[in-house]
Amino acid sequence: MRAEQAVVPAIEFIAVLAAAFSGFAEARNKKMDAVGIFTVAFITAFGGGTLRDVLLDRRPFFWVQHHQYVVVILVLTLIAAPALRLAQRVVPTAAFVTADAIGLGFFSIASCSVALAMGQPAIIAALMGVLTGVFGGVLRDVILNEVPVVFRDGRPYALVAFIGCLTYLAMVRSGTGETFALWSAAALTVAVRLIAWRGDWSIK
Amino acid sequence: MRAEQAVVPAIEFIAVLAAAFSGFAEARNKKMDAVGIFTVAFITAFGGGTLRDVLLDRRPFFWVQHHQYVVVILVLTLIAAPALRLAQRVVPTAAFVTADAIGLGFFSIASCSVALAMGQPAIIAALMGVLTGVFGGVLRDVILNEVPVVFRDGRPYALVAFIGCLTYLAMVRSGTGETFALWSAAALTVAVRLIAWRGDWSIK
Amino acid sequence: MRAEQAVVPAIEFIAVLAAAFSGFAEARNKKMDAVGIFTVAFITAFGGGTLRDVLLDRRPFFWVQHHQYVVVILVLTLIAAPALRLAQRVVPTAAFVTADAIGLGFFSIASCSVALAMGQPAIIAALMGVLTGVFGGVLRDVILNEVPVVFRDGRPYALVAFIGCLTYLAMVRSGTGETFALWSAAALTVAVRLIAWRGDWSIK
Repeated sequence: MRAEQAVVPAIEFIAVLAAAFSGFAEARNKKMDAVGIFTVAFITAFGGGTLRDVLLDRRPFFWVQHHQYVVVILVLTLIAAPALRLAQRVVPTAAFVTADAIGLGFFSIASCSVALAMGQPAIIAALMGVLTGVFGGVLRDVILNEVPVVFRDGRPYALVAFIGCLTYLAMVRSGTGETFALWSAAALTVAVRLIAWRGDWSIK
Repeated sequence: MRAEQAVVPAIEFIAVLAAAFSGFAEARNKKMDAVGIFTVAFITAFGGGTLRDVLLDRRPFFWVQHHQYVVVILVLTLIAAPALRLAQRVVPTAAFVTADAIGLGFFSIASCSVALAMGQPAIIAALMGVLTGVFGGVLRDVILNEVPVVFRDGRPYALVAFIGCLTYLAMVRSGTGETFALWSAAALTVAVRLIAWRGDWSIK
Repeated sequence: MRAEQAVVPAIEFIAVLAAAFSGFAEARNKKMDAVGIFTVAFITAFGGGTLRDVLLDRRPFFWVQHHQYVVVILVLTLIAAPALRLAQRVVPTAAFVTADAIGLGFFSIASCSVALAMGQPAIIAALMGVLTGVFGGVLRDVILNEVPVVFRDGRPYALVAFIGCLTYLAMVRSGTGETFALWSAAALTVAVRLIAWRGDWSIK
């Protein structure tokens, strides 16, 4: 429990930053102004979890509870151009993909666990997990007026989150402790995502 | 009541399948991968009712209560290509349009009835009815990055659902029994939709 | 209090009409049919507040409580073509922009106040205020299959609402009476918006 209390905020911070920067990059590609850059970064980072909470009727949202993240994204928006250039020079692509994969693994499995604890059927809990992990990007692409990339590139992304959620559910059902199931399923998701990325896997 | 208990699940099954197949077809036209095909089929089938329930603050959603449908769409997604080819060869267009019209009539009027029973004003209940019938297709088109076809083709589709809902509301207000009003307004909606389709009506 | 009871409905009416007409104009530009014209006008007028209420879990929505507005937009839709022509001949652009600015100022600050009264953190209340003022237009543009104009034109619109909300929050925090803070922050928002429009300001 002690370790978690230190690790979880760090993972959250890394995942939110990775999502926000993906939003910055896409919004700038589309020549958006500061309002657009902020909104797209915000939606990319928090859209999936917010949609999950609206569907499950949960409040407060993650970004209401941790509203310091709103301020962080606001400040980063003001310096989005140099911040992006710096990030692209300093952070290797592999590190960015890893941060994104950590976010996918952590938020998908945690969300699946939350839905299960609320008494949702297993298949719905898995769906909620995947949705939390990928719908930020879907909403970003809808706002940017593009067919969501996660629906057309054939890369195992949502699928990896789905497999991670099914693994978590199978472990819990077979009597594995909640905490161990959560962390190992999240780690599996991150690992498979990174292997799929390195191996340039495609399921199209 | 006995007859309903057998008929309602059959109507639901037909309507969900018709919507899912319309999603399959559109997603494949846009060269989506399996994740996109599943999501688009899911949103086409359940998007309208889900939006209605979010607006009216109702839970659980139809697809949470009947989560076997999620599994059905998942399995169909895996065989979407041959299933579509088979469906297009075996099911005549008229049967497909009829299944879709049954879904429109049944879900619009049932949804209008639910909203009325929750104490909504009549015009809001009618709006909720139409929204349930047509917003699955609207969300599908938004995800597919197209201007929703129901907003631009001038075919009486949402309008037919609206007339059906107004008929239902008029019958209930004039003292007709709830069950009879529901079934006859739904039947009227299906009939007018099919006549409009056969007659190639346009209101543009 | 007496004055408010007369003024508030008048402001609401002006703001709803301004938003609905902006929806009419955009929907007609995209060659939508009557169903599309109604829906786009409705979403432009009520989309921002509805999204705010869904996020804050508030019911009933503004348009459920004041469902006469739904009827007004329905009737106007039936005469959208001549109504638009008349409005464009009779109403000068400056009056239209003023009506829109009044809607932006009034709804943003009122919404910020509502969120604050619900116990939301200040930054979240400001976000909810801006969202209420601008997301009707965002949803309109998403439905019309365009990158939302408020995210890319560099005009101070969302930003003006944000400054208005921060002003309101600063006044309340410094002990100013709620009513006075609300009206003066709203007036400031309207004024800055109009000055920015007249001066053709751009922050891109």
